[in-house]
Formats: sequence, C-alpha cells, structure tokens
Amino acid sequence: MTTRYNAIAGQSVERLAALSDGLFAVAMTLLVLDLKVPMAQGIESDQALLGALWQLAPRLVVYLMSFLTLGIFWVGQQAQLSHFARSDRHLTWIHLVFLFAVSLMPFSTSLMAEFITLRTALLLYWLNILALGAVLYGSWRYAMRAGLVEANMSAMIDRSVEQRIVIAQGLYGLGALLCVYSTYWSIGFIILVQMIYVVGPRRGILSRI
Amino acid sequence: MTTRYNAIAGQSVERLAALSDGLFAVAMTLLVLDLKVPMAQGIESDQALLGALWQLAPRLVVYLMSFLTLGIFWVGQQAQLSHFARSDRHLTWIHLVFLFAVSLMPFSTSLMAEFITLRTALLLYWLNILALGAVLYGSWRYAMRAGLVEANMSAMIDRSVEQRIVIAQGLYGLGALLCVYSTYWSIGFIILVQMIYVVGPRRGILSRI
Amino acid sequence: MTTRYNAIAGQSVERLAALSDGLFAVAMTLLVLDLKVPMAQGIESDQALLGALWQLAPRLVVYLMSFLTLGIFWVGQQAQLSHFARSDRHLTWIHLVFLFAVSLMPFSTSLMAEFITLRTALLLYWLNILALGAVLYGSWRYAMRAGLVEANMSAMIDRSVEQRIVIAQGLYGLGALLCVYSTYWSIGFIILVQMIYVVGPRRGILSRI
Amino acid sequence: MTTRYNAIAGQSVERLAALSDGLFAVAMTLLVLDLKVPMAQGIESDQALLGALWQLAPRLVVYLMSFLTLGIFWVGQQAQLSHFARSDRHLTWIHLVFLFAVSLMPFSTSLMAEFITLRTALLLYWLNILALGAVLYGSWRYAMRAGLVEANMSAMIDRSVEQRIVIAQGLYGLGALLCVYSTYWSIGFIILVQMIYVVGPRRGILSRI
Repeated sequence: MTTRYNAIAGQSVERLAALSDGLFAVAMTLLVLDLKVPMAQGIESDQALLGALWQLAPRLVVYLMSFLTLGIFWVGQQAQLSHFARSDRHLTWIHLVFLFAVSLMPFSTSLMAEFITLRTALLLYWLNILALGAVLYGSWRYAMRAGLVEANMSAMIDRSVEQRIVIAQGLYGLGALLCVYSTYWSIGFIILVQMIYVVGPRRGILSRI
Repeated sequence: MTTRYNAIAGQSVERLAALSDGLFAVAMTLLVLDLKVPMAQGIESDQALLGALWQLAPRLVVYLMSFLTLGIFWVGQQAQLSHFARSDRHLTWIHLVFLFAVSLMPFSTSLMAEFITLRTALLLYWLNILALGAVLYGSWRYAMRAGLVEANMSAMIDRSVEQRIVIAQGLYGLGALLCVYSTYWSIGFIILVQMIYVVGPRRGILSRI
Repeated sequence: MTTRYNAIAGQSVERLAALSDGLFAVAMTLLVLDLKVPMAQGIESDQALLGALWQLAPRLVVYLMSFLTLGIFWVGQQAQLSHFARSDRHLTWIHLVFLFAVSLMPFSTSLMAEFITLRTALLLYWLNILALGAVLYGSWRYAMRAGLVEANMSAMIDRSVEQRIVIAQGLYGLGALLCVYSTYWSIGFIILVQMIYVVGPRRGILSRI
Repeated sequence: MTTRYNAIAGQSVERLAALSDGLFAVAMTLLVLDLKVPMAQGIESDQALLGALWQLAPRLVVYLMSFLTLGIFWVGQQAQLSHFARSDRHLTWIHLVFLFAVSLMPFSTSLMAEFITLRTALLLYWLNILALGAVLYGSWRYAMRAGLVEANMSAMIDRSVEQRIVIAQGLYGLGALLCVYSTYWSIGFIILVQMIYVVGPRRGILSRI
C-alpha cells in the first residue's frame, strides 16, 4: 500500500496565502501597464498634454474599477484563508483556479477599456467577476464540508461569508444587466457597488453586504 | 582554517519558499500578457469583437495549460519543501535551477502558442516540463541523501514523491510522442493528464498518480 | 441577527504587509522597464553606444527618483504596520488605496520622463506623492482612533510619525512650487529632499525629518 | 524632545527579506521577457523555426548568466540577513540601494544581449555586478559596526562573508579585463566563475571562494 499523494500535497495555508499575495500584487500592478503614456511627438505644451491625458480618462476609470475588484476579492479570500485550520490538495486547487481567474483580470480590463461601448467586452468582464465569486463560494463550501475550517468558528461567520458572496454577485449581475441600456450604466453601477464594499458602512441596510 | 561559505549559505527553507512563491506568481501572471487584446481599429460591433476573440481561443487553451503546469509544479515543490527540516547551499541551488526552468515557461508557452502546429515548439515545451520534473526529482534525491528531510518522515512518503514524478513524466513523454500524429493530439493528451492532477481523484487507479 | 462581515474581513496585518511588499517589489522593478535599450541598428561602435546611452540619462535620473520615492514610502508604511496590533476592514482598505497610489507610480514616472520640461507632468507626479502621503497620514490617524495600534506605544512615536509626514509633504510641495522657475529645479530639489531621507542624519536639524 | 524617526523606521529584517524576495523574483522573471518569440510570419517549417531560435542562442546565454548572477547575490544577501538580529534605518537603506542595483539588472542584461560585441555594454554589466558586491560588502561592514549582527556569531563567519565578496569581485574584475581581447572571453570567464559558485565545491582550493 502506498501513501496517496493526496495526503501530502497542498497542506500549507501559509504558502497558498503567499502565492496569492504575490499574484494579486502582480495583477494589480500590471493593470496600470495598460495606461500608456502619450507619445511625446506633437505634444509640446501643457494644454496639449492635458488634452492627451484626458483621452486616457476612461481607461483610468476602468483601471480603478479593476483595482477595486481585485482588492475586494483579495479581502474576501483573506477572510476565508484566515479561518482555515489547514488546507488539502483539493482546496489548494480550488484556490489555484481562483488565482487563474485573478490572472485573467488584466486581460478583461484591457478588453473593456479598449471596447468600452461594446456589450461583449462588458459581459466578459462580468463573467470574470462571476468566476471569482463562484470559485470563492465553492472554496468555502468545500472547506466547511471537508472539515478544514477551524473548529471554534461560529455558524454566523459561515452564513456571513456565503451571504456576502451571494449578495455581491446579485448586485454585479444586476449591473451587468444594465448594459441593455448602455455599458456606461453598467460600469457606473458596478463602481457604486464596489464603493459600498470599500467603505464598508457600519450601520443601516448597507452594513449587511 | 576558515569557515567554509558552504556552511552559512542557503540555510533558509522559508526564504526559498518566499522566492519561489514570488517567482511562480510573476510567471503565472506574465503568461496572460501573451493574450493580446485585439486592436480597436476596424472592430465596431459585438460580432466583430467575438470574431476577433475567437482567434485568441488557441492561445487561451495554451495559456490555461501552462497555468496548470505551473500550478502542478508549485504544488509538487511545496510538498517537498514542507518536508525539509532545513536547506543547504546545494539544495538552494537545485531549487534556483528549478526556478530558472519556471521562468522559461512564459517563453515556451508563447512559442507554442505562436507555432501551435510545429513539432519543434511542442518538443521544446515538453523539454521545459521534463526539466522541471527532473530537477524536482533531483532535489528530493539530494535532500534524502544529505539528511535534510525531517527525521520522522515515513518511507512511504519518500516513495510517493518519487513515484509521482516518474509517472507524471512518463505521461508527459507519452503526450509529447503523440506529436508524430499531430501537435493537437499532444496538447489534448497533456491537458487531460493535468486535469487528473488537478482533480486528484481519491479512489481507483487514478488516485495513485 | 447576522455577524457583520466587517467583523471578519481584513484582520491580518501580516497579509497586508505581504501584499504591500509584493506590490512595491513589482512597482520598483517595472519602473526600469521604461529604460529602453537603444536599438542595435546604426550603433556599431562604443562611442555610438555611449552617445545613445547618454540620451537615457534624464530617464535614469527620473527612475532613480521614483525608486527613492517608493523606498521612502515603503519604509514609512513599514514603520506604521510594525506598530499595528491588528487591522480591520477600514484600515485594510485605506492601505489598498495607498497601494493603488503606489501602482500609479510607474505611470507618473514614465509621464515625467517623457515630458520632463512640462509642468503638467511634474504636477501630476507631485499629486501622486501627495496622495501617498495623505493616505499614509489618514492610515495613522484612523489606526490611533480605532485602537488598532499596540497598547504600549509611546505618545512620542505618534507625534514622530505624523510630524515626519507633514514635514516631508511640506518639502515636496515646496519642490513642486519651484516648477514656476523650471521643472529641473523641482526635480533637483525633490531628489535633494529624498537624499536626506535616505541618509537619515542622526544629528542636527535634519535629524528631525 | 521628540523621538527621532530613526528610532522606529526600518526595524524589520523580515519585511526587508520579503521585499527582497519579491524584487528578486520579479527581476529574475523579467529577464526572460527579453527572449522574444520569433514572428510567425515567414516561418512555416520546423527547420525555419529552429533556425530562428538559433539566432536567440546568444540571448539565452546572457539570460542564463544574469539569472545565475541574481541567484548568487540572492544567496549572498540571504546569508547576511539570516545573521542579522535586527535592522535599522541605515541598514534598510543600504539594502534598498542593493535592490536598486538588482532592479537595473534586466536593463544591463538587455544591453549586453543587444550589443554583445561592444566593450561598453560589457563594462556597464560589470559595473552593475560591482555595485551589487560593493553594497553587500558595505551592508556587512555596517551591520558589524552597528551591532546588528546576532551576538553569538563567530568571527570566522565574519571573515568568511567578507572574503567571499572580495574574491568574487576580484574574479569578476578579471573577467571584465578580458574584454581587451574579446567580450566573448569575458562572458565565458564570468560564466565559469559563476558555475563554481553554483556548484559550490566542498573540497580543494575552490571550496574557499
């Protein structure tokens, strides 16, 4: 009888966190590479430069939105990892798939920045967010079932983690739907939702999401 | 008599793990830079964009394959490091050579994505995987012989680690061989093998690999 | 009653530090990508190469300045994090906004290197530095008020952290003002200020900043 | 009287190590971006691809050399950090200057790969290596004098660390000198020296370096 490789692979929550931090850091910084500095040629006054930078404004907005998205999911993943007593091979792979979706974010972002009026670009961007949420939801479900979560965690935390993902994804889905009017409506709505997550209100109805 | 530098260099498994996590994170994210967003010029409808994205599909598949490859070898390296009680200068350099092979992965991936029908590109990609496996095998052999592995580790783990590398490389080799028919067969087969490693079945014949 | 997500998100100072280290590392290294190697075509002698490299000198200076800027703020953030007993969701987001400003640094740097004589580029660069300082100031204020700072910290440290940020920003602002004469004066002054922070004199009036 | 900022900045060896690991990881991986995949256009057979890849061989050699250089200095820095009981603001800045030299490595490497026959490129590359060695030497000297090294460290380790840097830089200098014959001689010699450091012989005269 051999020891199954399953028994020794992917045990370390610490290294999973380290890989995740590294990958998020790279993805967050690569986003900005899409903000290309205007060519010096033909720009010789401050006005001309301001004009050229103004053209970049939509990209900057999209970039900000993606940074927020990655920040939100980094916080979300961190909240989960901090409650895992240990990991196993399956949980590790669930998070590697999560990181795959993270690594696609700079591409989705570039695509939306380039085709900001086309619904295809917006919907692919939303699919990327949906994938992030779905995998994170699956990670929690699996960790609960496999007994990888720390023993003394209250049931309320369980509910809170799941509830948050479901509500957030509902709001993102609503935002994506708004593209039947205009992709700008979608982007505006999604940024609004993200702002709520960033600010994290402590009271009122918004404190639940 | 002087203290040999060998005695004080490369002792820290923690920093080796940190460098590895960082390098894997960068390599995994750089892969996606190869997915270039189509030029906006000439693309003005959703259909045109979908058409342009469809052209990217082979690259996306190759990219996914390389992400899985890196994920598999990250898990494999982690499984080893977690059993090392300490490191030494030689072991550190074995892992630096391993990381060199990791850093070549984005290049091999780009090459295969660009020349997906040419056997040369596929065989170089396979050589990269072979190098990863061979160095990892060498790392384990060396660590066992040099007494760097933690004392209470069972002999079964030893066998399990080696067995896994040998079987995996056998399957990758088989996949590479399939290119005498077509490089697409090779790619399909390699992805299939990787999926088994990702899913990590718990029972049946597949649970042993 | 549900557990607020606020109560479980963003608790870990360690992971915040890890993400920050990763993001600083990437931003610091990406800066250098702006230093483009001259094209081999037409350069066939050592003289020709030296001449071409000489053209890069202004970029190298700007690059050095940005590396120092990032180094200074990395040290500043580290000094704060090392005094936090724990984090919370708000503090985490304050630092994510800080990291957003860090990730914009390669763009601001490129912009200034490309338009080194235009005030717009210099002022945007300064705004980036101002944002870094303002957010870091806000982080400390918030952490003090929310009781996240370790209990036994002396009031002098509190004053010292704030004082440093205010004085530094005052000097940076002065440097930016100098652009009414020439952007070169601004750059020279800012580098001078940074050198003081790098050397960190231990006595005399300069030891206070 | 205020607490000097010197007293609270740059204390953490751990975060210095984390930033260093991140920066080395990015620099090591960015090196490979210089290996550009040949354009698919005009390459339709395996022979044509092998021919195009053959053109890349000098770049691959230069790339390997730089990876070894970074690996050697990573090991060297790690050996120092592992003996530091704590850090201070000055030591932190010495290492930030060291990391600045690390971040220039991809540029020096690109330059040498592009102008492999010109002495200017080789000498700049050597200057980069010299800077790495000199700063690391200064770091050790400073840490010893400032009492930041762990108390129970033997004097032999002290001598060993310094001796190694001096001998290595002597050999690199010798290699650089060889460019009066040909830059290829320099490159060959430097790679030879590096191989000795990688292999780290345990006996004979070479075990001392």
